[in-house]
Amino acid sequence: MPRFALLIDYDGTPFNGWQRQAQGQPSVQAAIEEALAKLEPRPHTIAAAGRTDAGVHATGQVAHADLTRDWDPFRLSEALNHHLKPAPVAILKAARVPEDFHARFSALERRYTFRLITRRAPLTHDRGRAWHIQHKLDLDAMRAGAAHLIGLHDFTTFRSTLCQSKSPVKTLDEITIDSRPTTGGTEIRFHLRARSFLHNQVRSIVGTLERVGAGGWHPDEVKAALDAKNRAACGPVCPPQGLYLTGVSYPADPFAD
Amino acid sequence: MPRFALLIDYDGTPFNGWQRQAQGQPSVQAAIEEALAKLEPRPHTIAAAGRTDAGVHATGQVAHADLTRDWDPFRLSEALNHHLKPAPVAILKAARVPEDFHARFSALERRYTFRLITRRAPLTHDRGRAWHIQHKLDLDAMRAGAAHLIGLHDFTTFRSTLCQSKSPVKTLDEITIDSRPTTGGTEIRFHLRARSFLHNQVRSIVGTLERVGAGGWHPDEVKAALDAKNRAACGPVCPPQGLYLTGVSYPADPFAD
Repeated sequence: MPRFALLIDYDGTPFNGWQRQAQGQPSVQAAIEEALAKLEPRPHTIAAAGRTDAGVHATGQVAHADLTRDWDPFRLSEALNHHLKPAPVAILKAARVPEDFHARFSALERRYTFRLITRRAPLTHDRGRAWHIQHKLDLDAMRAGAAHLIGLHDFTTFRSTLCQSKSPVKTLDEITIDSRPTTGGTEIRFHLRARSFLHNQVRSIVGTLERVGAGGWHPDEVKAALDAKNRAACGPVCPPQGLYLTGVSYPADPFAD
Repeated sequence: MPRFALLIDYDGTPFNGWQRQAQGQPSVQAAIEEALAKLEPRPHTIAAAGRTDAGVHATGQVAHADLTRDWDPFRLSEALNHHLKPAPVAILKAARVPEDFHARFSALERRYTFRLITRRAPLTHDRGRAWHIQHKLDLDAMRAGAAHLIGLHDFTTFRSTLCQSKSPVKTLDEITIDSRPTTGGTEIRFHLRARSFLHNQVRSIVGTLERVGAGGWHPDEVKAALDAKNRAACGPVCPPQGLYLTGVSYPADPFAD
């Protein structure tokens, strides 16, 4: 069966996360599988690079699907987008890939961005699209705290107790933090990059760095928390709606033109 | 009665426009007037710089309200934001202003931005927040077309037949067009600035410039349409959801610290 990779963009607000739910709650995976069933009527099961939680968004999720027909990739993406309406899920590109390509297991790198907005007034346009904080944050302190997390570490502190990963040891290749003005305040973006992440790792890190930025934690307390290798040492896990899966890298880019 | 100016940010999606509706449909004006009535229980009538249409957004709308109590401006904005929840309307700032300040009649300049996204796939995160176009647009051609509209002109062509303005003669001080990459495509922003605008003027101009960008109109046909002084010569009026009222200027900035 021809295998296709799909580059997927979605607003996670109405979904109970990426993964298909036993109880039939809406999920991004189920929305795409149902669209595939309109093209080839039978049960479909697709695999994704990152199984985003409820409320988490993506601009560069990658999944793969096995189809019977040898679809023209552009026609496949157009047909899926037609059947996905009105769900806020879009196939940005489809590509024919080798049978040994696996969206999850072939991935070399995942990239996430977390959007945080500090302003006094409630959010309007960005409600459900960013984490709203009403106090100011010290960027330099957050950067100093983040520096302790770069590299190979046991991230037990920054891992959900529900995490199913075999090992808590991961290499975090990047955390950069930038800021820009936004209506009535400042938007702060955290960019994280790693081969793979533990469950809730990004939200555990951003929630902890927010405590550093607010002055509640000294930047060096991030190192102490990491060294504790204890979930109880983590700062508060931040809410999901600021998190975006922005990209996934493979040995060969399936979507290169 | 002390008069207060309010700097207002809103997502226009759930509203039937700024203006209070006789039939009680949701409007931004009614939402704010109802919040004011929670603070001072009586009917309130506020006036705004720009009476935005249904689906149009604002990041810098200005209105004024007459209150009985001499509110501390910060406490007033906080109390209004409390009572506005969960409507996507936020008071960014409140300020005490002289009694001769009028949000609409004292305004010297209004600024609008129109967001357009060209990409093949349907919109997800920006649905309801930008106009979606699937073909490419020629920025230089749109800029050449826009140049014909700068300055003092009879804008009858670019004015709704419902427009209640006494004169169709207005001075358009600025149209700049910029672009930036966005997920799966390009975002184009049109920035317009004038003392005042006619009803549907921005959407009539952007809809016409889109035709120029798509190659359907030569840039000089914008001048011919303007010179026709005839509503029938206008290009298609574009949809409201890409339009944002971004700012209003007064002889003295009521919100200066």
